[in-house]
Amino acid sequence: MSKLFVDACFGKETPYTPVWMMRQAGRYLPEYMAVRAEAGNFLNLCHDPKKAAEVTIQPLDIVGVDAAILFSDILVIPDEMGMDLSFVKGEGPRFSDPITNEADLDRLIGAEAAASKLTYVYDTIALLRQQLDARDDDIALIGFTGAPWTLATYMIEGQGTKTYNICKKMMYSNPKLLHKILAKVTDVVKRYMEKQIQSGVDVVQIFDSWAAAIEPELYDEFSWQYMVEIAEYLKEKYPHIPVIMFPKGIPAFLDRVYGNFDVFGVDWSTPMELAKEKLGAKYVLQGNMEPCRLYSQEKTTEAIKHIHNVMGGKRHIFNLGHGILPDVPVDNAIHFVRECQRISKH
Amino acid sequence: MSKLFVDACFGKETPYTPVWMMRQAGRYLPEYMAVRAEAGNFLNLCHDPKKAAEVTIQPLDIVGVDAAILFSDILVIPDEMGMDLSFVKGEGPRFSDPITNEADLDRLIGAEAAASKLTYVYDTIALLRQQLDARDDDIALIGFTGAPWTLATYMIEGQGTKTYNICKKMMYSNPKLLHKILAKVTDVVKRYMEKQIQSGVDVVQIFDSWAAAIEPELYDEFSWQYMVEIAEYLKEKYPHIPVIMFPKGIPAFLDRVYGNFDVFGVDWSTPMELAKEKLGAKYVLQGNMEPCRLYSQEKTTEAIKHIHNVMGGKRHIFNLGHGILPDVPVDNAIHFVRECQRISKH
Repeated sequence: MSKLFVDACFGKETPYTPVWMMRQAGRYLPEYMAVRAEAGNFLNLCHDPKKAAEVTIQPLDIVGVDAAILFSDILVIPDEMGMDLSFVKGEGPRFSDPITNEADLDRLIGAEAAASKLTYVYDTIALLRQQLDARDDDIALIGFTGAPWTLATYMIEGQGTKTYNICKKMMYSNPKLLHKILAKVTDVVKRYMEKQIQSGVDVVQIFDSWAAAIEPELYDEFSWQYMVEIAEYLKEKYPHIPVIMFPKGIPAFLDRVYGNFDVFGVDWSTPMELAKEKLGAKYVLQGNMEPCRLYSQEKTTEAIKHIHNVMGGKRHIFNLGHGILPDVPVDNAIHFVRECQRISKH
Repeated sequence: MSKLFVDACFGKETPYTPVWMMRQAGRYLPEYMAVRAEAGNFLNLCHDPKKAAEVTIQPLDIVGVDAAILFSDILVIPDEMGMDLSFVKGEGPRFSDPITNEADLDRLIGAEAAASKLTYVYDTIALLRQQLDARDDDIALIGFTGAPWTLATYMIEGQGTKTYNICKKMMYSNPKLLHKILAKVTDVVKRYMEKQIQSGVDVVQIFDSWAAAIEPELYDEFSWQYMVEIAEYLKEKYPHIPVIMFPKGIPAFLDRVYGNFDVFGVDWSTPMELAKEKLGAKYVLQGNMEPCRLYSQEKTTEAIKHIHNVMGGKRHIFNLGHGILPDVPVDNAIHFVRECQRISKH
């Protein structure tokens, strides 16, 4: 059975424009909070296939989205490469041993060895595959990864950062080391995504959440080329699996986007008109309602109509332009999903 | 005497392209840290005209920039409107009494009454005017303010924010209150900038540091129109004073920039080529080296050459595309300034 969402990723006509939300399995859902509390903490939840599958499915039933996205975290990759990941309450992820030199990098395991350790992710996917196949709806399962650059920022800074100054110092004074890190992560991600596909995902998305931290002149060199390498590796072996690229915050140089993939994720800082003009002929576009519009049902409907008018109901997937925030009322998330489906219905 | 920097702001030909750096009076300078330590804390330093003037002058002598920018903080405005500002060490500014409703706003004093309280700023400017006039160089003094939107984010959130979710909730569900706040701040800023001019600044810059927090569709409504209102108020009364607008991070919709002002500040996320194409005919452009390039002298020179080539030495002021970071070596800042002056020399 061909799935609505997969068809849309390939630009085929669908009865309506499918919709999902970044972070749809997240803190705005009391049901998610309950499972997370049972798990004890966020990382435990990622490591527990049964619970991870449960929260992955929740938004399908509660919010009515057209695709499920694997519940996991992008930082499980460096964690399994040998770094020491923890989550500090209220402060986010921490690595106690950031990479400062080649020796730090050489201590990490690469490619197949690292990707093989992420068994809890593949187990989650296998479980989801069974559960989704047993349903009478038509829901696609999206696997994902962080882009090598986004992962590297945490591996180098040891935590989230506002200024990226440690990464930037490396970028401008020791670019060779940064490239070595990016290449090693890229090799792990290729194998990781391949194993996600073999375990049963229908679509994959590569999140470059910190794309906007790189100056336009250097974005291809330090991030995009690695994302394209991953996408093209997957497209060659698994052409039936759509690849979605989501580099957040690069409206200034959409002209420079290239590569073999299917869907370009448009963040909310990029007007849909601009994305359509620059990329709409080459790629299906996904996005891009400003997630804070979810605070108002009226402003949500207004934005959906605008985006739908720009895209004309073609070569488009509805989504937010960034993750849903924890304090959004569930009813407003439901309203968003229903309105996307209603307004785009042929 | 007409100043090199003022000439450049008006697009006149100058012997070389003048240069200054955002945050040039800042933590990367040991001499600044010494004065700040004497003052006790950051806010005391803002309140002490003698010390504030001293740190304003420091980068002229140490780094060799072509313009001085008043040392102050954008948040002295809401502080003098009646909010309670403090700086929490390592965490940044705090207001203990954020605005949540009309009554909170009505308690604040407006326009002339608030602007009159900022005497320490005007005293600093008057002192600087004397000191600069006594020098045999040709240094312009830049006054500044935060844009109403940027100020409002702190007044509403009570502190810096990653998600702006309290402001956004207001923007989408109670836009009337947000406009009321913005209008009140705008009235104070108009009078504040006017008094800065009367005290002796040669140029003014309006910083919209959090411009990128607003979706493109709404940027004019919630920020730009207020900035233009301030600029046009000043240009009408003081046409000889150049106005610089710096909305950080709006490369996606430069087409929508309008208004009577002189210089558009280009942040580093916006390629200079794009800014020139969209705005170069209407405004002089200021910027835009990625400040982290200051970690490497080689990469600094490379960027300066690129920017200079794009602008062709015309209708341009060199600057960073955002503030200089505290861990930049002073020698590299000196290198930046000298290279801008050397490379652009006729």
